[in-house]
Amino acid sequence: MLTYHLEPHSKTPLYEQLYRAVRADIMSGVLAGGSRLPSKRQLAAHLRVSQITVENAYSQLVAEGYLTAAPRRGYFVQPQLAVPTAQHAPSSLPPVAPAAVSEAYAYDLRTDVVDNGCFPFSTWARLSRSVLSEYADQLLHATEPCGAAALRTQIAQYLRDFRGIHVTPDHILIGAGSEYLIHLVIQLLGRDRVYALEDPGYRKLYQIFRANGAAVRPLPLDRQGLRADALAASEATAVYLTPSHHFPLGTVMPAARRLEILRWASAAPDRYVIEDDYDSEFRYASRPIPALGELDRAGRVIYVNTFAKSLAPGLRIGYLVLPDALMARYRERFSLYSSTVPSVDQLTLAAFMRTGGFERHISRSRKLYQARRDALLDALDRELAALPHEVSRSEAGLHLLLHMRNGMLERELIDRAKAVGVRVYGLSAYYIPPVKPPRATLVLGYAGLTEQQLGEAAALLRQAWT
Amino acid sequence: MLTYHLEPHSKTPLYEQLYRAVRADIMSGVLAGGSRLPSKRQLAAHLRVSQITVENAYSQLVAEGYLTAAPRRGYFVQPQLAVPTAQHAPSSLPPVAPAAVSEAYAYDLRTDVVDNGCFPFSTWARLSRSVLSEYADQLLHATEPCGAAALRTQIAQYLRDFRGIHVTPDHILIGAGSEYLIHLVIQLLGRDRVYALEDPGYRKLYQIFRANGAAVRPLPLDRQGLRADALAASEATAVYLTPSHHFPLGTVMPAARRLEILRWASAAPDRYVIEDDYDSEFRYASRPIPALGELDRAGRVIYVNTFAKSLAPGLRIGYLVLPDALMARYRERFSLYSSTVPSVDQLTLAAFMRTGGFERHISRSRKLYQARRDALLDALDRELAALPHEVSRSEAGLHLLLHMRNGMLERELIDRAKAVGVRVYGLSAYYIPPVKPPRATLVLGYAGLTEQQLGEAAALLRQAWT
Repeated sequence: MLTYHLEPHSKTPLYEQLYRAVRADIMSGVLAGGSRLPSKRQLAAHLRVSQITVENAYSQLVAEGYLTAAPRRGYFVQPQLAVPTAQHAPSSLPPVAPAAVSEAYAYDLRTDVVDNGCFPFSTWARLSRSVLSEYADQLLHATEPCGAAALRTQIAQYLRDFRGIHVTPDHILIGAGSEYLIHLVIQLLGRDRVYALEDPGYRKLYQIFRANGAAVRPLPLDRQGLRADALAASEATAVYLTPSHHFPLGTVMPAARRLEILRWASAAPDRYVIEDDYDSEFRYASRPIPALGELDRAGRVIYVNTFAKSLAPGLRIGYLVLPDALMARYRERFSLYSSTVPSVDQLTLAAFMRTGGFERHISRSRKLYQARRDALLDALDRELAALPHEVSRSEAGLHLLLHMRNGMLERELIDRAKAVGVRVYGLSAYYIPPVKPPRATLVLGYAGLTEQQLGEAAALLRQAWT
Repeated sequence: MLTYHLEPHSKTPLYEQLYRAVRADIMSGVLAGGSRLPSKRQLAAHLRVSQITVENAYSQLVAEGYLTAAPRRGYFVQPQLAVPTAQHAPSSLPPVAPAAVSEAYAYDLRTDVVDNGCFPFSTWARLSRSVLSEYADQLLHATEPCGAAALRTQIAQYLRDFRGIHVTPDHILIGAGSEYLIHLVIQLLGRDRVYALEDPGYRKLYQIFRANGAAVRPLPLDRQGLRADALAASEATAVYLTPSHHFPLGTVMPAARRLEILRWASAAPDRYVIEDDYDSEFRYASRPIPALGELDRAGRVIYVNTFAKSLAPGLRIGYLVLPDALMARYRERFSLYSSTVPSVDQLTLAAFMRTGGFERHISRSRKLYQARRDALLDALDRELAALPHEVSRSEAGLHLLLHMRNGMLERELIDRAKAVGVRVYGLSAYYIPPVKPPRATLVLGYAGLTEQQLGEAAALLRQAWT
């Protein structure tokens, strides 16, 4: 007779304790396949529990296929229920590294943050609250494949007013950040082609294209940006560009080069230019450079942007602008997809844009970041006066380049900065091997630190590098 | 001399009107490459605008590479700036079909909705507000690659308490819905293998695997679910299953079959089972069927679930539970990825789970849906009494199957239902051609309609089908 110790005062119901006990014996083989279990009455009496308890436990085991019930004959253990065990014991998993690696540093000049102070939390919270109360229905239904119409409308208007790109909301596709959007682009353009990338460039891109099974070809840059001759000479039929402000070099691609690349795209069918406009909102001197997409008449430019820089990286909202043919293809093939961005966030952002909050936020943060840029430039001039160096005076973006000529190599500059609690990043990390990066150049992001902090960081860098 | 009509009272600044006008003439070729522009003083005088205005316009055109400034010689148009035009005029895009296709119907028995009334909007709004105020920092930084630790911890606890799966938060990977998660799984397992799918099954899956460049092999089912012999006979090395409650047939895979499939997975290296537990929360009779993952000792089961059914489809949050080896691979290869789910939603959901809101919501909606299920079953029994039919009395999920034997084929049943304003869905849509689906079987989702609405819909179906 089965004997189990059941704990009447446990918060686990008796029937469940019994169910688990019997199940364990079946899995471990203690109860052999085919063997007959005691009747409900017998077992109930034996364990001093109610028959209902045994009934519940048995029926659960039947429902899950551990037992079979034979009318008037009783309950039998299913044959062959031994659990397969690991060939090799699985390696135990190390805990995840903490997200903020930078805790060790007093000052982190990373490029992937924005200022905390200036995000309009209370406005955002108020808007999302009203969205939650007003749009219950939309929030619960599956999200539209291309994203909420309200948000696409706002984005189309923003592109027209601030980027000179004239598109209808129907050309816009909303997605959860650039990784996902690139994945979609690859699904649309296919893996059976070569994608050209800027080298140096956004290293992650390289990884994303490769992870998506697409062939990538890094191409060199010159003063005007990606070299059109190298593109023409390559077997690539699509190219990923940051023409408004190259990442990380800061190059602004002049019109002539843009048109060269557009001519390349129109010169053969099925060639595409993917334009990443990641930080075009932050131009301090002249007006924003018009997007390449604005010059596109052949429907060969795919425009990509996100709100990571303009609002916050933690808000995973980005979008594509697709030419007619590609949007039609998306609708035809991926009509079953749901947008990857939660409806509430889409509608909150739409309300934020509609009510002018976004425009205000951009101009506020543009001022803020320009002041930080100027502060960092001044601090570097002041502190590094005695050390031979060059600073890129790019008029845009949230980072600048510092090239040291004090005889130290990149690695040494980074390590010495670390020793004084300042985190700086080497330009070489943006190059795809085996290309040899320039020596001793650093990428300094200033968006995440105050003017004072930037001054302090620069002073520490002097110490470290002198 | 250039002559443009500039509108002093326009909200577009004069310099920008001028900039646009000159630029247009350059693009159209009116101003030929190499030609010299009038001096700032001349043009200012000619157009009766200040020199500053011309200065601004010219310098913008220089910044963008339309003009070059030659010291003491003036401004010259860059050569070769003619815009490439389309080989073929791009086809104009039809507007997007409205999201709610069902507007035409008074009653829509779709399977992809949840009840509006029962989502705890105010709680959610309150929690997200406090998250916005408390976690400013986290919201702005890039999201952790595996998702917020707070949410992974809550999910691990939920899986332990309700699904009997014992994993650490480090095994959990948060992503924006099943499409994205499957895309990640394919990146982890690779495209150079064949993925077996249930046929019938979730059609979208087929599309997703294909769109991701993976080879798929639909496999037949029997009473116990996916046929293990067919799996063993196929060249597939990974299989996608809904063992707890097959979609759409409702089959619960018994333990023997589960173990057969686990044995198949452990029989050779690098074989995997992807377990989709999409609606396991909604079981009305016995306890939830334990997940296949619970029986996995070999590290071959990838568990997938989302909050689409348990909370709302519009909330794009799902997760994977990865075995050690695969999580290690993810961290190694995709450490640069950011989670696709906005931090605020992740932390709000974590708070919702931690404070017991999720558990309450589940039990509340389970009762609600069970009542709707019973109402629909009663209504069908009552209304269709005179018509030969069969109803699947599945004890789980948010839909049931209705097989009509009144001589009408699926198409006719659907069309006649449409004529009376009821939208029903044919089972054949879940089969992958060329497999011949059963005749005259419908999939009826009841989560989105009230008990009364379900009764009314059933009455209309009687009219339509008699």
